[in-house]
Formats: sequence, structure tokens, C-alpha cells
Amino acid sequence: MTAPDPAFADWMGGIQARMESALSRLLPPAQIAPARLHEAMRYATLEGGKRVRPLLTFAAGELVRARPERLEAAAAAVELIHAYSLVHDDLPCMDDDVLRRGKPTVHVEYDEATALLAGDALQSLAFQLLAEPVLADDARLQLEMVKLLAVAAGSRGMAGGQQIDLEAVGQPLTVPELEAMHIHKTGALIRAAVLLGAACGGAPDAALRARLDQYAKTVGLAFQVVDDLLDHEASTATLGKTAGKDSRQGKPTYVSAMGIARARELAQELGHNALRAVEPLGPGARRLRELADFIVLRKF
Amino acid sequence: MTAPDPAFADWMGGIQARMESALSRLLPPAQIAPARLHEAMRYATLEGGKRVRPLLTFAAGELVRARPERLEAAAAAVELIHAYSLVHDDLPCMDDDVLRRGKPTVHVEYDEATALLAGDALQSLAFQLLAEPVLADDARLQLEMVKLLAVAAGSRGMAGGQQIDLEAVGQPLTVPELEAMHIHKTGALIRAAVLLGAACGGAPDAALRARLDQYAKTVGLAFQVVDDLLDHEASTATLGKTAGKDSRQGKPTYVSAMGIARARELAQELGHNALRAVEPLGPGARRLRELADFIVLRKF
Repeated sequence: MTAPDPAFADWMGGIQARMESALSRLLPPAQIAPARLHEAMRYATLEGGKRVRPLLTFAAGELVRARPERLEAAAAAVELIHAYSLVHDDLPCMDDDVLRRGKPTVHVEYDEATALLAGDALQSLAFQLLAEPVLADDARLQLEMVKLLAVAAGSRGMAGGQQIDLEAVGQPLTVPELEAMHIHKTGALIRAAVLLGAACGGAPDAALRARLDQYAKTVGLAFQVVDDLLDHEASTATLGKTAGKDSRQGKPTYVSAMGIARARELAQELGHNALRAVEPLGPGARRLRELADFIVLRKF
Repeated sequence: MTAPDPAFADWMGGIQARMESALSRLLPPAQIAPARLHEAMRYATLEGGKRVRPLLTFAAGELVRARPERLEAAAAAVELIHAYSLVHDDLPCMDDDVLRRGKPTVHVEYDEATALLAGDALQSLAFQLLAEPVLADDARLQLEMVKLLAVAAGSRGMAGGQQIDLEAVGQPLTVPELEAMHIHKTGALIRAAVLLGAACGGAPDAALRARLDQYAKTVGLAFQVVDDLLDHEASTATLGKTAGKDSRQGKPTYVSAMGIARARELAQELGHNALRAVEPLGPGARRLRELADFIVLRKF
């Protein structure tokens, strides 16, 4: 694997800038009442993060030549779900974290009640955006997209994964158990990001869907393994969130389950599997391949 | 106004039983992993409440002869949003309540993190249900229904109303300010319940929509005024939730803003206005009229 070439970095920077502007436009203005809630929603979402999920949506959308304004709307919905999950995850009753994306977490900057409601309202807004007419000509397919995101966010997706995570604190998990947790906690939303991007170009056939599913699953796990490695190795300043926290909280990680060397190998293997899944899709899958590399090689 | 006749009580009981069974079927089984989360979601939703919002959905649906299986799905979505809002509202960082519907609140029975996630997952499930094919032949209209519920639940609807409520603690609000708060906090979801019921029979024309809007607004406020009166007058045992709590917490209520006698008059006036709004709609609006009476005359 080689480092991402400049063209990929440009593509990535372009989408990150586009999403920042789109999210700023789609979130309620901070001047509108209730102002404190709207400020908190904006604070939680804007100026932060690598926008990995939107990048995946655009990469999958490029494969099917989907219209960028549709990808933008779908990617914004996914990113709002992600942003809400971080706000709730940082609350004292969950991970009790004070730092996120280099800034105080929402409940520290505002207060717990406002953080709770901001997360709740971000989730509602995600579904509002996904129901906008811009998203598809085929309303039936668009309803399928709403359902896909709802399932990915819900008790058998992301929220369920967070529950499994909570219950795992202090428990030594096996690698398959760890994998099952992450397939829900981060994998479900990453899969939704990829499949929604593809759906923006029309309903994908079963073969394409299976390949994208496999890609999303392996990329999602790679992302998590690298996250655990970075949490173990990097400093708080580089990460923009509290480093080394998972292991101190007694949370099982890939590093604690298999050691650093084996975790590094696993990240590489998962990256290769992701590449293999989209290999037969030809040049249109270029961004998906580059993103898989980026996710494995990232340093933050 | 006369007391509800037996036929209304039968109708109401029938829908309450139907909704209990529908919600039990639509919620994930408690045996499925993550079991504790699914148990908490069921605990938060089942065996509780008067199901006022589903009753409003069915009453509006009867006016347009909507199919009962559609009304059931729409009513379930609204009720899940309501159930999630109660779980989050009861959390220590919000109202910090220990009793709801005669049982310990979700975070007392389980724990705060599980309550937070159960509320989050109930919201996702609401949108999942609303995207199911059973709900409408017209997928474009169904997307409008998704959007309507999302807006009603979000920062300019219910979640926004809760934020206004939070910020009002210890502040003496004027009656118009109190009204503005409740139009968001409880009114937005009550309006969604009515309009979704009507939409189950096809897109309502502008005139019908305006009447239903007026009905929903006045019934929603009447509901809140009666809630404040009951909170002031009734015992904890009758209410199934902690009585007298709002005034002890320094929350503005209609009783504190205008006194008991005037609040009673206001509830009656609002009930009359609700009846007037649907009067020209003829016999099909019978259940809407009966429900307005029920909401004003209820003792629990």
C-alpha cells in the first residue's frame, strides 16, 4: 500500500469542505429559538472530525455516478446520526469524557440536559433530511433508505452496539466477541454510509450490494482496530480526544485482546480484504479503494 | 359537555388494547440481544399511559376512513417518540423523576446509560416503522409523513419545547410564554398524531388540514392545562407519577400563572374551541369531539 496520492487528498478535502458548508446550512441557525439548543447542535456537528462516513457515502456514490446533491443530503443524515451518538456517548452516565475533536464535549461546554436534547434533536434532523424530496426520484427507494438508516442507528445497530460496549466494561472479550460489538457499534453506521451512497444512484443489484456490504464490514472493523491502536499509541493532542482512555476504563480493545503487533497485522489484513471486495468493480471504485488505504494508514 | 358515553369508552378501550398488542409486536423481543436494552425499551413503552396520541391518530383517521392497519403503524411511531421523550425527560439531568405510570422510571429500574440508549433506540424505531411499506400506497406522501414526525420531534418541536422548559425553571412566565412553550413541548407531537392519522387516508386538503391544525392546537393546550391542574390537585397514587412536582421544581404552570379557577375555565374554553374547529366536519368527526371532551374531563 502506498500513501494516498495528492488527487485523493484533494478529493477528500473537497468533500470535507462541502460537508462543512452543507451541515452548516442544514442545521438550524444559532439565532433561532431555542438558541442554546441550536448552538449546541451546531457545536456538536461543525468544525470537527474527518467526516469518514460522508467520504464513504461519496465514494460509493461515485461508483454509481450518483448526483452530488443527493450524496450530500444522504451523507449529512449519516453524519448527524454520528454526531448525536458522540454527544450521548460522552455524557457522564456513558463514557464521561470531557474532550472531543480538541474541544470540550457538549455537556461540558453547555450542560448535560442541553447535550441530551441536542443529541435527540440531531437524530430527528437526520431523518428529516433523509425524507427531503431532493434525495431521490423514486420515493419507494427513498423510504428504504430511511429504514436502512433507522435500523443502522437503532437497537440492533449502533445503539445496540453501545449497550454491548457498556456491558463489556471490565470483561475480557474474545476477538470474535469484540468483533461482534464493533460490527454494531461503529460498523452498522459505516455500512449505512456506504449503502446509502450507492442507493443515491438507484437501487443496487444484489451482487453489488453484497460487495459493498463486504467492503463496509471490513473497512468498519479496520477503522476500529486502527482506533484502538491510535488510542494506545497517540497523544491526546494528536487525537483531539482523551488518549488511552479505553484501557484505563477497562474497556476491551483489539490491543488488549491481541497485542500491538497482531492488531497492526489485523488492520492490514482487513484493509486488503476491503480492497479485494471492490476490486472487480473497476475504476469507478477508485475512491473506495483509496479510502480503505486511508483508514488503515491514518495517524489521527 | 357530558361525560363520555359507553360507546366512546368501548372505542377507546379497543384502541388501547390494539395499541398494546401492536407495540408489543413491533418492539424487539426481550430475548434478542442486547437483551437488557430491549427489555428497557419494552418497559418504557408497554403497559402504560392512556395512549392519548394513538387515540388522536385513530380519531383523525376515522374522519377520512383510513385503514386501521395504517393508523396502527402511524400511531405506534408517534407513541414511540412519546415514550422515548418520557424516558429522557425523567433522567437525573432533566426532571430527575423516579416514578412514571405507577412504576419506577427506566433509569431507576435499569440504569442511566441503558435509559439513555433505550430512548435513543425508541426514536430510531419510530422512523423505521414510519418507513414501512404498510403505511401508504403513495410513497411521496409517506415521505411527507416521515418529515412531519421528524420536525414535530426535533429542535423546533418537542425537543425544542423541552429546552424552553429547562430554561424556564425558576422564571415566572406570562401566559403567552407558557403557551409558546407547550405548543412545542407537547403540542407538536399531538399535532403530528392528528395530522398523521388524517394522512393515512390520503393527503388532506388545505381546508381540512387547517381545521385539524386548529383542533390539535387547542386540544394540545387543553391537555397541558388539565395536566397542570391534576398535578396540583391529584395524589401521586392517582397520577401514577410524582404529583406536585412541577411547582416544587419551580416550573411555571397554568395554575401558578393564573390560579386554579381561571385554569379550569381555560381548559373548558380550549375544549370548546377544539369542538368548534371540527364541528363542520360532520358525524365522521365524532371521535375527535369525544376525545376533546375526554381530555378536558379526565381525572388522571
